[in-house]
Amino acid sequence: MGKQTVAMSNPPSIAAAACVGGKKEGEGPLRKYFDYISTDSRFGAKSWEKAESSMLKMCYGIACDKAKTPPSDIEYVFSGDLLNQCAGSAYAMRDCGTPYFGLYGACSTMAEGLSLAAMSIDGGFCDTAVAATSSHFCSAERQFRYPLQYGSQRSPTAQWTVTGAGVLILKAKGPGPYVTHITTGVITDAGVTDMNNMGAAMAPAAYETLSAHFRDTGRGPDYYDAIVTGDLGVVGGDILRDLFAMDGVDLGVRYMDCGRLIYYIEGQDAHGGGSGCGCSACVLAGHLLHGMLEGNWPKLLFAATGAMMSPTTNQQGESIPGICHAVALDMTKG
Amino acid sequence: MGKQTVAMSNPPSIAAAACVGGKKEGEGPLRKYFDYISTDSRFGAKSWEKAESSMLKMCYGIACDKAKTPPSDIEYVFSGDLLNQCAGSAYAMRDCGTPYFGLYGACSTMAEGLSLAAMSIDGGFCDTAVAATSSHFCSAERQFRYPLQYGSQRSPTAQWTVTGAGVLILKAKGPGPYVTHITTGVITDAGVTDMNNMGAAMAPAAYETLSAHFRDTGRGPDYYDAIVTGDLGVVGGDILRDLFAMDGVDLGVRYMDCGRLIYYIEGQDAHGGGSGCGCSACVLAGHLLHGMLEGNWPKLLFAATGAMMSPTTNQQGESIPGICHAVALDMTKG
Repeated sequence: MGKQTVAMSNPPSIAAAACVGGKKEGEGPLRKYFDYISTDSRFGAKSWEKAESSMLKMCYGIACDKAKTPPSDIEYVFSGDLLNQCAGSAYAMRDCGTPYFGLYGACSTMAEGLSLAAMSIDGGFCDTAVAATSSHFCSAERQFRYPLQYGSQRSPTAQWTVTGAGVLILKAKGPGPYVTHITTGVITDAGVTDMNNMGAAMAPAAYETLSAHFRDTGRGPDYYDAIVTGDLGVVGGDILRDLFAMDGVDLGVRYMDCGRLIYYIEGQDAHGGGSGCGCSACVLAGHLLHGMLEGNWPKLLFAATGAMMSPTTNQQGESIPGICHAVALDMTKG
Repeated sequence: MGKQTVAMSNPPSIAAAACVGGKKEGEGPLRKYFDYISTDSRFGAKSWEKAESSMLKMCYGIACDKAKTPPSDIEYVFSGDLLNQCAGSAYAMRDCGTPYFGLYGACSTMAEGLSLAAMSIDGGFCDTAVAATSSHFCSAERQFRYPLQYGSQRSPTAQWTVTGAGVLILKAKGPGPYVTHITTGVITDAGVTDMNNMGAAMAPAAYETLSAHFRDTGRGPDYYDAIVTGDLGVVGGDILRDLFAMDGVDLGVRYMDCGRLIYYIEGQDAHGGGSGCGCSACVLAGHLLHGMLEGNWPKLLFAATGAMMSPTTNQQGESIPGICHAVALDMTKG
């Protein structure tokens, strides 16, 4: 197809999806789409890092159960997270006995994993593959910002890392929703250096990937019933609309952002909205796929976004490189 | 094929490989196989993290040049490294304009990237894909152990993180060497907790993956002219031999380890040998592929190993999960 987009020859089907969240997510507008909510976000573990692994492991178990697929039938797991050395995923998947491809795509991980899982099936390498990811507010806050005990003030543009895990099980055959097209992002850096304004840093990457998707497929935004970015949030989502408006393209009401959907922005003091790998993963695995199956948006373009800096590179004055991977989902094989 | 192994239908060809190293690597036994050596390991940059990105970017440029392939012809880059949030790769590839899949496989990254690059070609998604990775002694030492200025003593089993980057360019067609089989590792944790003995932590993963490869393909070790693990080093390499010996299998002289090959263990005070993503990447991109083309080992099994812990999980008392991905390389299409 086009330079950044591939079409699946035999679109893989999403056989099951599961999402697990923390207390704040369970108080948000999407609470009913979670398979499990931990009321204190500890998931029975002694540290926040262990809590994140526990949460992801639990979510993987629920997804296998929903797909009626024992873990031994899963041929590849594609998983990653935000923790240093992606330890959340490694410890979650330590005992699953499944061939494991570790990913780092920051908050774009669910779209990256979904892309590679679909390609591994469509390429003929397996029949069943998993895309998984997680984030935890407390492990992320400690690692990227300040210890929770410090009680740091949050800037108005700051986003709230979602405590959540999402797992999708893809199969070669099934009733859909299907993965039909994959547009893989290039790293895009518009020079933003503010770690408290990730939405602004990632919006140019979302613009780049969505533009590539439209150019490669010959589709316009109105082809889709929903176009959903990962965690641009309140600030980045508006920037993305503005970037397309400059091209004379109105994304319209079909445009949504997972970071905006997951919390009551005002009522839950969420400032710039949700973020983290778990944000788009939970919203996709819960709300969005549920809506597809209910007929609300038969054609959905899922475009998760990630900021690829580290605290060290930020301290060294580097700007924040963004990335966005887009996956076209369709209730028919397209 | 078997549970963990896939055979390529049309084995992709390694069109070019490049490796770049630091001062210590340039004083080792494999010096002549490096495309470039930086005499002070700074690669013209102001911080060790920037040095690592510079090194990888330079290596990518050299590989494109050797393949006579402009970066604009590369369809996918699969890259990752050891730095928190895999920042070495993200900044190195920030300006390349190529669809980017970020990986985290610790020191197994070159085998993971090589697997996915080969699958993306054999699956029909692209004609040209890149596997890339890097590590830098100084950025790793600071992040995983102590600041260099502290002058910490090293334990006898400690390995030395290679300052090096390796890049492989794969194409759908070409004269070889070919990627014929891919065995993807499962996370294997034998309960080792000593961060200064990574070889012991990773050896069980190498045993698991190599055993799976032999079982899945019906081949024995003697099918290959060389079987090369990534960075088990002196201690882990011996453990791997012992594990196979318990099965009555003698790996023999065909078994080598990149961590043992890259330094003069005694003469360069390398203790347990080399490690880091750059270790197996440089040895493969330089010495091993050179030897394949010279006819020294027409059939080579490359099995890079990674330790998937983080300093945080280690401080929390967790053991070290290991992983190993194996890739069969052949001068014929097998």
